[in-house]
Amino acid sequence: MLAMRAKILLPITILSGLITGIWPAGIARAESGYDAWLRYAPLTAAAKAKYKSLPASVVVLGDAPVLRTSQDELIRGLRGMLGRTFRAETKLPQESAIILGDFKAVREVAAQWRAPVLASGDGFWLTRAHVHGFDCIIIAGATDRGVLYGVFHFLRKLALEEDLSNLNEKHEPYAPVRWVNQWDNLDGRIERGYGGRSIFFDNGTVRADLSRVADYARLLASLGINGCVVNNVNANPRMLASDFLPQLARIADAFRPWGVQLAISVDFSSPKAMGGLETFDPLDLRVAEWWKEKVDEIYRQIPDFGGFLVKADSEGRLGPSSYGRTPSDAANALARALEPHGGIVFYRAFVYDHHLDWRNPKNDRARAAYDIFHPLDGKFDDNVVIQIKNGPIDFQVREPVSPLIGGLEKTNEAIELQITQEYMGQQRHLCYLAPMWKAVLDFDMHVSGRATPVKDLVAGRVFHRPTGGFAGVANVGLDATWLGNPVAMANLYAFGRLAWDPNLSSSAIIDEWTRLTFGNDPLVVKTVDAMQLSSWHTYESYTGPLGIGTLTDILGSHYGPGVASSENNGWGQWHRADHDGVGMDRSVATGTGYVGQYSPAVQKLYETTAATPDNLLLFFHHVKYAYVLHSGKTVIQHIYDSHYEGTQRVKEYVRQWELLRGHVDEDRYAMVLARLKYQAGHAIVWRDAVCNWFLRASGIPDALGRVGHYPNRIEAESMQLQGYAPFDVQPAEAASGGKAVECAPPTQQCSAEFRFTRPAGWYELEVQYFDQNDGKSKFRVLLGDQLVDEWVADDDLPSAKVGSDTSTRRCISGLALRPGDEIRIEGTPDGNEHAAFDYVEISPSPE
Amino acid sequence: MLAMRAKILLPITILSGLITGIWPAGIARAESGYDAWLRYAPLTAAAKAKYKSLPASVVVLGDAPVLRTSQDELIRGLRGMLGRTFRAETKLPQESAIILGDFKAVREVAAQWRAPVLASGDGFWLTRAHVHGFDCIIIAGATDRGVLYGVFHFLRKLALEEDLSNLNEKHEPYAPVRWVNQWDNLDGRIERGYGGRSIFFDNGTVRADLSRVADYARLLASLGINGCVVNNVNANPRMLASDFLPQLARIADAFRPWGVQLAISVDFSSPKAMGGLETFDPLDLRVAEWWKEKVDEIYRQIPDFGGFLVKADSEGRLGPSSYGRTPSDAANALARALEPHGGIVFYRAFVYDHHLDWRNPKNDRARAAYDIFHPLDGKFDDNVVIQIKNGPIDFQVREPVSPLIGGLEKTNEAIELQITQEYMGQQRHLCYLAPMWKAVLDFDMHVSGRATPVKDLVAGRVFHRPTGGFAGVANVGLDATWLGNPVAMANLYAFGRLAWDPNLSSSAIIDEWTRLTFGNDPLVVKTVDAMQLSSWHTYESYTGPLGIGTLTDILGSHYGPGVASSENNGWGQWHRADHDGVGMDRSVATGTGYVGQYSPAVQKLYETTAATPDNLLLFFHHVKYAYVLHSGKTVIQHIYDSHYEGTQRVKEYVRQWELLRGHVDEDRYAMVLARLKYQAGHAIVWRDAVCNWFLRASGIPDALGRVGHYPNRIEAESMQLQGYAPFDVQPAEAASGGKAVECAPPTQQCSAEFRFTRPAGWYELEVQYFDQNDGKSKFRVLLGDQLVDEWVADDDLPSAKVGSDTSTRRCISGLALRPGDEIRIEGTPDGNEHAAFDYVEISPSPE
Repeated sequence: MLAMRAKILLPITILSGLITGIWPAGIARAESGYDAWLRYAPLTAAAKAKYKSLPASVVVLGDAPVLRTSQDELIRGLRGMLGRTFRAETKLPQESAIILGDFKAVREVAAQWRAPVLASGDGFWLTRAHVHGFDCIIIAGATDRGVLYGVFHFLRKLALEEDLSNLNEKHEPYAPVRWVNQWDNLDGRIERGYGGRSIFFDNGTVRADLSRVADYARLLASLGINGCVVNNVNANPRMLASDFLPQLARIADAFRPWGVQLAISVDFSSPKAMGGLETFDPLDLRVAEWWKEKVDEIYRQIPDFGGFLVKADSEGRLGPSSYGRTPSDAANALARALEPHGGIVFYRAFVYDHHLDWRNPKNDRARAAYDIFHPLDGKFDDNVVIQIKNGPIDFQVREPVSPLIGGLEKTNEAIELQITQEYMGQQRHLCYLAPMWKAVLDFDMHVSGRATPVKDLVAGRVFHRPTGGFAGVANVGLDATWLGNPVAMANLYAFGRLAWDPNLSSSAIIDEWTRLTFGNDPLVVKTVDAMQLSSWHTYESYTGPLGIGTLTDILGSHYGPGVASSENNGWGQWHRADHDGVGMDRSVATGTGYVGQYSPAVQKLYETTAATPDNLLLFFHHVKYAYVLHSGKTVIQHIYDSHYEGTQRVKEYVRQWELLRGHVDEDRYAMVLARLKYQAGHAIVWRDAVCNWFLRASGIPDALGRVGHYPNRIEAESMQLQGYAPFDVQPAEAASGGKAVECAPPTQQCSAEFRFTRPAGWYELEVQYFDQNDGKSKFRVLLGDQLVDEWVADDDLPSAKVGSDTSTRRCISGLALRPGDEIRIEGTPDGNEHAAFDYVEISPSPE
Repeated sequence: MLAMRAKILLPITILSGLITGIWPAGIARAESGYDAWLRYAPLTAAAKAKYKSLPASVVVLGDAPVLRTSQDELIRGLRGMLGRTFRAETKLPQESAIILGDFKAVREVAAQWRAPVLASGDGFWLTRAHVHGFDCIIIAGATDRGVLYGVFHFLRKLALEEDLSNLNEKHEPYAPVRWVNQWDNLDGRIERGYGGRSIFFDNGTVRADLSRVADYARLLASLGINGCVVNNVNANPRMLASDFLPQLARIADAFRPWGVQLAISVDFSSPKAMGGLETFDPLDLRVAEWWKEKVDEIYRQIPDFGGFLVKADSEGRLGPSSYGRTPSDAANALARALEPHGGIVFYRAFVYDHHLDWRNPKNDRARAAYDIFHPLDGKFDDNVVIQIKNGPIDFQVREPVSPLIGGLEKTNEAIELQITQEYMGQQRHLCYLAPMWKAVLDFDMHVSGRATPVKDLVAGRVFHRPTGGFAGVANVGLDATWLGNPVAMANLYAFGRLAWDPNLSSSAIIDEWTRLTFGNDPLVVKTVDAMQLSSWHTYESYTGPLGIGTLTDILGSHYGPGVASSENNGWGQWHRADHDGVGMDRSVATGTGYVGQYSPAVQKLYETTAATPDNLLLFFHHVKYAYVLHSGKTVIQHIYDSHYEGTQRVKEYVRQWELLRGHVDEDRYAMVLARLKYQAGHAIVWRDAVCNWFLRASGIPDALGRVGHYPNRIEAESMQLQGYAPFDVQPAEAASGGKAVECAPPTQQCSAEFRFTRPAGWYELEVQYFDQNDGKSKFRVLLGDQLVDEWVADDDLPSAKVGSDTSTRRCISGLALRPGDEIRIEGTPDGNEHAAFDYVEISPSPE
């Protein structure tokens, strides 16, 4: 009786891994987000009726692991959505059936059925056919994986309540490489991971329980993703240790039933670092032999091993330059060891000098990849893939396409997209990236004067390369929602869908995702689709408009605003803003010459300020603040306006999401709402930091008088303080007025008080405080003697400093204030967090 | 990030006990049932708009604890429902306000306001008045408690979205005694408690954390309940130990802010058992002195102590009969000690001989209370209350009113109603008791030939007694839902509302409760109201129709069916069923003479079979099975039919509840659904046990051919068994065919297999198994090699035996079966639970 709730939930645990899909239909389940888009939630009665006449038997032709998975998954999905347990058969019954098999197997049982001509592997055909006189549904794959992909596609059609009566669909992947990368460290932390600790590793070893790994593989397979690099590109040499390989084999075992190949990142210096050689020179025969033996050892334990990902000569990683060798020397050394087994080397093009002299206006980090790799075109073996980030810098909110993508004709490519939102709000901010990726994939590089969109180049279709495709940096973790936020999963979904078919539209993808994730309620679908589709531009507008790059703290967390941090250092991510103007001149005529790396047609687009689109202007050109954009606005006013507009749009997201109360399950409703409210507060931090920085730099006031004027704000430092002491925040724009107050030891509790003097009415009171990750301070707000709110600053933001990463907003709505009221903020520090806060803002309640 | 859910919920914990009602409006909360009818859930925007112009200040006149509670509670409720924090004031502001105070205090600030004339204490008046020129809302109470009750009433009106524009409501309680009893033992167990362990006691002491006690007092206060007896009537003498009293004082401290008086049950032998005297003779002066000193000691620590509840000379408890003294001697001895402090003695009339000779047809337990207490009328002191169960037996599903209620004219009375569902399905079965209680309270006893309804007799209104009223046996526990099931809380709610105003209708009460508990969604309100209102009759129809009494295992758990258990023993709860007929002749003419205890007018109603209503026929008369009821049916056919009808109605409840998916919060939806599904299965156990017993007893077949014929059933003992062995179940009717199969040690796993031979189609397969409380067996169901269900028998049913208490139904819906299919049940025993099961039933899927 006491454990009623627990008991209701128990079957999930019991059943997981034993049988799939057995759950009493009609039980409302708490939704944690764990099931992502594979919820198989019960359909409405009307939709169920539509599928009433589906054959009751699911016949699988063959017993390969992926085929068995296909049958289990289909039965699980049908059970979830229709509340019925279909029959698992291995022989054709004397009745209609759903038949699963590869083309060959299907033809053996259905003589008149003809396999379709599909260009590439892993395709599938869903159709109806007569088999032994019965009308059957055929889910046929070019490969076993194709069958599994066909099953997921079939289930997706059901979840979307699509008609199956004239089923006839052929699908095949756009490219052979559809991989995800995980930047997991062996100690369990994930570099740039925002969804908890590693599902693969903990404390230097592979986890004992890999059930989450299998569930991850299932999510990946549902999108057609066929490979996963499981460890950080900044690789630990231990990955290749002989006693570690059996552990890796366990991961491969968890992947295999889902058709996902295991691959690993390797430290290029491994032959020396852990192999006992005195060199790792790729042209040294001992090194080549070492790699060959190591690879053979791997394949003995993992026969379907995928290959290596290499980050070398980049950001401190050792590489072939140690021996004066080239990336092609390096890649080929590994490729030749892998080649007999069918393995691939992914060699990252993210190679640049991070000690660049910022005083030289001709220096340009953006040039690096092309400068290094373009000359090597044709020197890479056929099982090497150059993995190229979508832009020339590093996953900024807006970059042009990397010119290297158009700069390799005799070399395989893959485009590296970042699913984990390193510069995009780290899953705390809503930012659906498909529109950005689509802009990249559809961009025409005009190579050799032909129409050559990026998607065709990276897929190897333009130059008929043997392989190529898509790599997404996912970084899922142990959080129940995988990425730390249910809505961020749209990016993993979109990556997978685009890797399968880059011709899908952002809106078609998000519509699928929303329906699969939250159901087909029209209000939910309309609202979530619209929020997601606009979210990238919203994020861009308050973090880095006009192609300036994400104006974040580039040297630290890559999270909150830090406008000046990218200047005056060797990392090369410069926006060159000064008192006169802003932007980096990369033209051929007067700048770094970067524009010259593009084809002539693309050069025309970017070489002049007049031609360059507004949204990339500052990436390519340095202009005065008063420069007038195509839009008719000046650059400086655009910076101000876009930050205010973006902030306002996030506030609107909160309001829109609140309308979904009761339309979305309670737990995910609350999770997403909490994140959106946080984002609305943090967007204000961004807005104020960036606008004030540019106001100070430019000296040009906001035409609308907003920047620097906050009539509803009471600065903490202006309150009557007891125990609290004011201090200067660095950089100044990270706090309102450049100052905050803190309650430093040995003081145990501090207060800040002020008198309310405005007219009586209903108000919202917002407290801007600093929530560091090195303590859990407590705050209380009193109106006279009446406690009206209290909270603990226990969020896990990426900084132990008072600053823009930690600045957080608490809203207390619906307060009846009267002139003369004494309002008091009480802070109790904890650990190294000194209950610092910045200001209080009081505005009339809405309505 | 990992702890996102926990973080969202954290504020509840932080705030509890510190401030009330601060929760960001609009956050969807998981509902555990803990808040019961005091959820203060956000109102719809339309309803909020209706209350937009409420004054923003809440002024309390006075600082007594209950007044402070009143102000806090009002602000908490308004915050929850309206999302605004009203101002807590102690002085009148220069604006409109909501003013809380007793009549005197209100008149002091509002000169022209006149207190209403209210007959009894604790009444309140909600109205509007001008105070200092401002239009104010006045919540005025005759006492501090009246103010608190007024606040709860005001908040209830908001939650029900009632109009406040012409606020003018006076309410006063029907009787001074509105108490609950808890049967909690000091070790933490609760006798007849089904909501977990005691909130008061654990391991022989009062719990350190009494926050649940305060929250319980809040629930009670919201209904106007003003007293609580915290320990079992089978009292531990230690309650009165001097070192225990400070612990009790802590409970009183938790009750006090809510106006709830603490009282305790005492062991009448305490002066001897723990007081060091050699006697507990109530007429012994040393005993009287002992009680006086003990009571004085209590009042020094608990100045508002309520008094004693006494169960004496009953079911083995010692009492005055040990010394040849009467109950009045006993009660008065205690009353005289309590009288100077205003304390009361509740003396239970539940006194009877449980060694009655069942062979004597004139013996009748039902006579006992009247026979013992009626002669003592007038001998009890004015601070003694005789606490009388509603019926003459013991909380059976249908009993006539106890004649003692009409048999005391010079003695205070209270009616004892049972909220905890001891005989009513123990909170696993839905059974809303207000209709039963209303039938009792409205029943006219025709005392002295006047209209004297029970409610007026127990309230002391007929004979102008100084006190009297209502006692409800609640037995809430530590379960989050208090009673173990959210829907069972309707009974606690209804008891409190009827104790305040017994003229309320069952339907008005349930409508309030449903709206407060689940919100105002019309579909929810209509469905839940209808289910609750019909549930008592439904339960009666499959457990004990025609006044036969609940046909449960009377010697054990009082839970599942046990038709023969009440016969042939001294406990006197006989139904006298044999091969000829059924029922107990209590007429004056030919029976036990019990009917003669009623007034002449009531005697007329019950003395003859012709006059007696069908629903009490078997309580008053022994009739042949072929006896024709007023309804035109024979008794035996009525027994068959009502069991089938009741079972069908519970099945319908499941279907109706399922329509509320998405209209009720997820957790409570799932909890209630699980319980209703369980009930639907257990109703079948009841139906089959009772019908088969009466078929065997009467030899008269069911006219509709149902009883004893189960064409869809495959008995376990007829299957092909491996390891499983058949055995006879006692009593035979507790298992289909009288037999089950068990997997006894040392066997580790057993199976039972059978071949399906019916036509191909979609079927439901139900497994009737035994879920004992001494093990957690596992079951698996396979269709050929396909696992189609598995579960653990881990429910906490009240028995360690294979039998009707533990017989449980598992439904596997939506199975595609084909003739020739092999179906296998696999059982894995655990502990002393041998994975026993009874049968499998296979029926075509609905639709």
